[in-house]
Amino acid sequence: MNYVDRDTVLCISLAARPSNHGVRFHNWLYDKLGLNYLYKAVAPTDIAQAVAGIRGLGIRGAGVSMPYKQAVIPLVDELHPSAARIEAVNTIVNTDGRLVGYNTDYVAVADLLREHEVDPGLPVVVRGSGGMANAVVAAIADHGMTGTVVARNAATGQSLASRYGWSYSDAVPAGDLGLVVNVTPLGMAGADADVQSFSDAEIQRAQVVFDVVAFPVETPLIRAATRLGIPVITGGEVISRQAAAQFELYTGVRPTPEDVAAAEEYASA
Amino acid sequence: MNYVDRDTVLCISLAARPSNHGVRFHNWLYDKLGLNYLYKAVAPTDIAQAVAGIRGLGIRGAGVSMPYKQAVIPLVDELHPSAARIEAVNTIVNTDGRLVGYNTDYVAVADLLREHEVDPGLPVVVRGSGGMANAVVAAIADHGMTGTVVARNAATGQSLASRYGWSYSDAVPAGDLGLVVNVTPLGMAGADADVQSFSDAEIQRAQVVFDVVAFPVETPLIRAATRLGIPVITGGEVISRQAAAQFELYTGVRPTPEDVAAAEEYASA
Repeated sequence: MNYVDRDTVLCISLAARPSNHGVRFHNWLYDKLGLNYLYKAVAPTDIAQAVAGIRGLGIRGAGVSMPYKQAVIPLVDELHPSAARIEAVNTIVNTDGRLVGYNTDYVAVADLLREHEVDPGLPVVVRGSGGMANAVVAAIADHGMTGTVVARNAATGQSLASRYGWSYSDAVPAGDLGLVVNVTPLGMAGADADVQSFSDAEIQRAQVVFDVVAFPVETPLIRAATRLGIPVITGGEVISRQAAAQFELYTGVRPTPEDVAAAEEYASA
Repeated sequence: MNYVDRDTVLCISLAARPSNHGVRFHNWLYDKLGLNYLYKAVAPTDIAQAVAGIRGLGIRGAGVSMPYKQAVIPLVDELHPSAARIEAVNTIVNTDGRLVGYNTDYVAVADLLREHEVDPGLPVVVRGSGGMANAVVAAIADHGMTGTVVARNAATGQSLASRYGWSYSDAVPAGDLGLVVNVTPLGMAGADADVQSFSDAEIQRAQVVFDVVAFPVETPLIRAATRLGIPVITGGEVISRQAAAQFELYTGVRPTPEDVAAAEEYASA
């Protein structure tokens, strides 16, 4: 019952509409690993005062969600290269009152490209031009790859492409597609759950299919690629990697893939 | 296990050296009463940023301990009369981003004088001149009583006495003492545990004996007064009243005396 005491280390998340996912994921792992930590989701009323509170109240870490990923940049003391690269912070770590902003989405995608040994010589097609697409394109570009951003919104699509010296197109290019990446909500639980973000014909022109959608992990795109025998990287892997990276930044402990999977299963139940 | 979710209301305490008492007291009652609240003790690194964090992070309430009871005054939006009267805040309540400072020590003492039907016509002797003595003398004065502050420190003793139009003395006066109050650490667990703050002869000149020391509740003074048949008010009653008042300010729920006693027993175990 006395699950919190004066020594309990507090971590939080900052989101306009907090979910229970991070709360469940982190608290489950704290309990599993015997760490005297507590994770609480917060909907801040004022982001500047909220970040001041991280410092003033000695809160160890904070996950940062929309719409605060840019707003916190002038409020932290230092940007880690992962956050500076894409000008977006999704994680704040407080070490003795000094706040450093990280981007563990970028880190997770970069790690996955290495782990899956994606050939940097492949062409790339990324569908999407939002905040997460920015992290994904940056990580892919820093993996040594150059490709095409495909987006309905020409303004954000062109802006994203030009930032990394890529091309923009409103349609999937012809020929060999190499690494095919979905960073739109197509296939996500909700209105577009049944939409396959790349066609079977497009998937057959790819060497690797990467869907950043994590809810569900088995999107129409991932199911089709698997059926067609094309190697996949899933949004579930992104979520797990980024959450594990956050967890390690806060606690200094790297959870095992098995513990992360179990925490993720608990959090998503 | 999932004892905290996105809707959990967070309350904290701010103290240079946090104890586990408040954490255990409040969390035990939250659990007992089925309230989705969580209480965490915090040692702030910067009091201004900590109070900003109460607002920015939507923390519902904060207990304020030494040395912050004066420092938070310019940081809150409004002082409740209980805090304005003694220029000390021990409780901050955040209602939709507006912070109001209260002093539940003052409230607790005022309530106890009424409940014990202490005759306002009695003389008073208060031993002590620290922060808690200030709250106690103010509540007694506002109960309609005038008396004497007895303190070794003439500067703080005279200052406290003059603030409420009382007398100062370095020794207990002669004659009828009326309400006799100890607000020093004499009798408290520690170096002065065996010291009886008023002598048997002094107690026999009193109508009511009030010891603000709460750890232990059975101080030498309380034991002697009980033995001599003089009615007592204990520090345990002060602690319970002030904690119940804080709890009610945070949650809107007034715990029963039985629940408060059980929570206090758990917290002190």
